[in-house]
Amino acid sequence: MNIGILGGGQLGRMMALAGYPLDIACRIFEPAHESSAAQVTSRLQGEFDDYRTLFEFAQGLDAVTFEFENVPVNTARWLAERVPVFPPPEALAVAQDRIAEKTFFASLGIPVPPFAAVETRASFNDALSEIGLPAVLKTTRFGYDGKGQAVLKSHSEVESIWQLLGGRPLNYESFVPFDRELSIISVRGRDGEIVHYPLVENAHREGMLRRTTAPAPQLTTGLQKKAEEYARLVMERLHYVGVLAIELFEVKGELLVNEMAPRVHNSGHWTIEGAATSQFENHMRAIAGLPLGSTKPLGSAIMLNLIGQTPPLAKMLAIPGAHVHLYGKTPRANRKLGHVTLLGLEASVVTEQAGRLEALIG
Amino acid sequence: MNIGILGGGQLGRMMALAGYPLDIACRIFEPAHESSAAQVTSRLQGEFDDYRTLFEFAQGLDAVTFEFENVPVNTARWLAERVPVFPPPEALAVAQDRIAEKTFFASLGIPVPPFAAVETRASFNDALSEIGLPAVLKTTRFGYDGKGQAVLKSHSEVESIWQLLGGRPLNYESFVPFDRELSIISVRGRDGEIVHYPLVENAHREGMLRRTTAPAPQLTTGLQKKAEEYARLVMERLHYVGVLAIELFEVKGELLVNEMAPRVHNSGHWTIEGAATSQFENHMRAIAGLPLGSTKPLGSAIMLNLIGQTPPLAKMLAIPGAHVHLYGKTPRANRKLGHVTLLGLEASVVTEQAGRLEALIG
Repeated sequence: MNIGILGGGQLGRMMALAGYPLDIACRIFEPAHESSAAQVTSRLQGEFDDYRTLFEFAQGLDAVTFEFENVPVNTARWLAERVPVFPPPEALAVAQDRIAEKTFFASLGIPVPPFAAVETRASFNDALSEIGLPAVLKTTRFGYDGKGQAVLKSHSEVESIWQLLGGRPLNYESFVPFDRELSIISVRGRDGEIVHYPLVENAHREGMLRRTTAPAPQLTTGLQKKAEEYARLVMERLHYVGVLAIELFEVKGELLVNEMAPRVHNSGHWTIEGAATSQFENHMRAIAGLPLGSTKPLGSAIMLNLIGQTPPLAKMLAIPGAHVHLYGKTPRANRKLGHVTLLGLEASVVTEQAGRLEALIG
Repeated sequence: MNIGILGGGQLGRMMALAGYPLDIACRIFEPAHESSAAQVTSRLQGEFDDYRTLFEFAQGLDAVTFEFENVPVNTARWLAERVPVFPPPEALAVAQDRIAEKTFFASLGIPVPPFAAVETRASFNDALSEIGLPAVLKTTRFGYDGKGQAVLKSHSEVESIWQLLGGRPLNYESFVPFDRELSIISVRGRDGEIVHYPLVENAHREGMLRRTTAPAPQLTTGLQKKAEEYARLVMERLHYVGVLAIELFEVKGELLVNEMAPRVHNSGHWTIEGAATSQFENHMRAIAGLPLGSTKPLGSAIMLNLIGQTPPLAKMLAIPGAHVHLYGKTPRANRKLGHVTLLGLEASVVTEQAGRLEALIG
């Protein structure tokens, strides 16, 4: 079976590696010259509006997926007329616009923080008075890893933040005093079968994911069931196929949905060693129309991202239970270069090993 | 880091796939046009005595290894003058000649079945009278998967077996009335560190491995320690680096060594999902001079080979706990096309799932 992947970063790389044991060959479509995924499989280089190269890309493919949620929706729709595209392009459309996304969640009865669309200075003032402070102002499109957003704590910051972000479509959102950030990775097959991984706890710094603890500590059945229900509602409404990640805030035992990513997700990397079937394999199984695999965790896991630079490989591998994944990328500030999953049967031991690794990462 | 692999079969494929997460890129050298490994990484096509292509192959490599124990020793030695070759070519030389191999084991005090070199009809007669029947007559070189050998049960078969195998250097070996066949996979790093996986139990049919149960049922500490000691003796004498597989017979609680394979081994495939670190990753770590990973089993595993044909992928994946590995090879009688590892916490459940899979395999 041949599967095309739009986007050639580390997510595409790990998808392609998960495909090989199932005799699924992946082909990458990526505009940039440097590509983490292209190091492990074939690729075509082209812009996402280069339809001639996209046409060539689609030849002989059984399905197309994407590893990058900012793939133009038109590109996905154009391909979907020629070859099945999973997840459906509609999921991309929803996820690419924060207002559309929040409105979509609300329409399904999924709780979200209070939000308002801000297009003008006047609507900014309205949002300020209706929703109040603290708040987060985000561009509605193309923000990721903390880019294109700012936290607004006091009225004295209003002018400077408007200078920074104003003039583009924005989402003004109440800043939730969350107890912690969680995410759930769910998978829906072509036959409608749905499986969920356990909720995980995520720690961000400078807008980037640094650490995932899986399963989330003190995870209750009630919390898990609620998150699964939200994921199911989203996936069924969108006729979704593949892996979906939903980021949530836990606030006093309740869940608010923050956003979704219609793709494999950084907070699911722990599943490569930490679950019976990885998110990458389950994504491949889903889009290939194969039965989904067990999402059962095999122990306690902590995933740490390697950002900007990587400690010496030998030092990381010397930590018991450390599983290192390097992406073959040129080091650069704030760039995700790899991740390490620490896996063990006792959470306290895993936490201690994670501390050793964090000391190396600095 | 760049590592060259001599041989382009499924063992090379799984080595290359294990290298990627460590940012190790593998380059394959394989004479045949069709190559399982070349589907997942780059390769050069050439005969093993094509030194011009071998010279090109060696450029930019940090180390060379092999996945095929019939690589000519001279090829390995020629490469070793240009780039580090692990395991050492001497290990190949020993493993390629059954008489040299058995003599080597015996010189280390490792128990082996009674054996004798047979080169002429006269020495065949000597072996018959000294060692007696039943016995196994094997070509000393280039036998694998049951090829080039015959079991000799009665004197009436002597003539026909001599007709079949006579004229080549042979090893006449007492047929051991073994209780079961076991193997141990061990790894030695460039710094001399040694780790061992638990002994596994192997079932062969028509000379080919069909099923591995890991760890071996009713495994005692005494048996494990003995096997580890034999592996250590072999590896230290050979200044070995990488994965070594040793096949053994268990006879009334004692171990006799049958043969060794200086490479990753079919009976170690269960380690991909069933152990903390796979044999393939540990082989890569060893030859790259990196610390070795834990060999701890994560549960009970049964590995079944897919030989000659493969059941429908969807049916195999529908079995809980089944991890499917297809090698991308054209089906052909008696060809290893893939394997499936069933992993679980309860051996009885794994055995039941293995039964379901065996029914599919037929």
